[in-house]
Amino acid sequence: MTNTNNRNRARFITLEGGEGVGKSSNLAFVQNWLNQQGIRAVTTREPGGTEAGEKVRALFLGDEALTPLTELLLMFAARAEHISRVILPALNKGVWVVSDRFCDASYAYQGGGRGIETEFIAALEQRVLQGLQPDLTLLLDAPVEVGMARARRRQKIDRMESENHAFFENVRTAYLQRAAQSLGRIRIIDATLPLEGVQQQIAAALKTII
Amino acid sequence: MTNTNNRNRARFITLEGGEGVGKSSNLAFVQNWLNQQGIRAVTTREPGGTEAGEKVRALFLGDEALTPLTELLLMFAARAEHISRVILPALNKGVWVVSDRFCDASYAYQGGGRGIETEFIAALEQRVLQGLQPDLTLLLDAPVEVGMARARRRQKIDRMESENHAFFENVRTAYLQRAAQSLGRIRIIDATLPLEGVQQQIAAALKTII
Ligand SMILES: Nc1ncnc2c1ncn2[C@@H]1O[C@H](COP(=O)(O)OP(=O)(O)OP(=O)(O)O)[C@@H](O)[C@H]1O
Ligand SMILES: Nc1ncnc2c1ncn2[C@@H]1O[C@H](COP(=O)(O)OP(=O)(O)OP(=O)(O)O)[C@@H](O)[C@H]1O
Ligand SMILES: [Mg+2]
Ligand SMILES: [Mg+2]
Repeated sequence: MTNTNNRNRARFITLEGGEGVGKSSNLAFVQNWLNQQGIRAVTTREPGGTEAGEKVRALFLGDEALTPLTELLLMFAARAEHISRVILPALNKGVWVVSDRFCDASYAYQGGGRGIETEFIAALEQRVLQGLQPDLTLLLDAPVEVGMARARRRQKIDRMESENHAFFENVRTAYLQRAAQSLGRIRIIDATLPLEGVQQQIAAALKTII
Repeated sequence: MTNTNNRNRARFITLEGGEGVGKSSNLAFVQNWLNQQGIRAVTTREPGGTEAGEKVRALFLGDEALTPLTELLLMFAARAEHISRVILPALNKGVWVVSDRFCDASYAYQGGGRGIETEFIAALEQRVLQGLQPDLTLLLDAPVEVGMARARRRQKIDRMESENHAFFENVRTAYLQRAAQSLGRIRIIDATLPLEGVQQQIAAALKTII
């Protein structure tokens, strides 16, 4: 599959972090930066990225309360679709994939935020990802208030964004813990800097995997 | 929770079986029969039974192909919602619950039909059901052609119903294997008989749990 070690194989890059830290803003930057190195790359997002995935996204960000377990299982349902219809087909054609969120988000939101035990998330990850792991994860990190203030400047507040402060502190902590255990896969990017400073850090991280 | 052994606790009854065997037709019969014994009962169905569950149902029965894993995870996502918002609240109020399909359907369709390994389905069942099991499952059994002929007489063919014959043979076999291992929870009902004969068998099975 994708984890052979040849220098030319396509890489899988994910952007992670709490609300409003700048994931979506930097997705095109990563793609453009890769293109400038002559590397073909597609961008995608979770939940979403497929027809069924976008419907799950709508369900997920809608007004109805969902139990934590429902959230987690919907996420992995959409992820199974995303992997087999978008991510693996692109990688297998030699096209790099840059995704706005991926599996680390389940550990951070449904694990850290909602309190579902890591063991069950790991069982789902093992069965659904079947060995696929990002080659590089850019964790955009900022104090909760910084991201929230940015997100509030946009229009609509979705169901996740209406969670309380403690929820997002737990999400941030879970992301940072995962980074610490990731053996270098997850790079922490200081997202409090102006966009230019954030993008300098991202470019430096990208250089390490090309 | 619900599995204490007092005679008055509310029971959880499920109807299972392949396409067109008569599950939906007999749901109201079960409810009415219970009502005639002075027992309050609600009916529900899977996938569905909740707002989010009905959206999952629409996704599920729509035209888009879904991977087997996506199907399985969507089913359990809807089930988590169904259990915590419909089934357990009713049982805890002393109201019996009669569901048109439940967890055995995942073993039959995503396990037997789609080939997902039983171990993973069992891991999901253990986490999502948290000990909840039907007190009685009525497995309406008929040769595939009998159910298909009945289903074809209705209008719209959904995505599941357009599967091939071998798929439904595998579903039937998986249901029968599960019945054999269920220590009496799953009662096989001969669904080839006219509705009256089916309902006599159902009434006989219901008598054993009241
Ligand atoms: N480094 C930055 N400095 C200042 N503002 C920023 C920075 N990065 C992004 N923004 C602004 O913050 C807002 C949120 O950014 P963006 O939508 O990219 O975040 P996100 O991480 O994708 O959020 P969400 O989690 O809600 O999807 C946008 O209005 C964006 O223009
Ligand atoms: N015992 C029976 N004899 C003859 N026809 C029957 C019998 N039971 C049900 N039917 C008819 O067969 C058709 C399918 O029945 P029904 O919709 O109840 O099946 P089902 O198991 O709910 O199907 P599905 O799996 O598609 O939901 C209906 O038209 C119904 O009237
Ligand atoms: Mg975004
Ligand atoms: Mg039916």
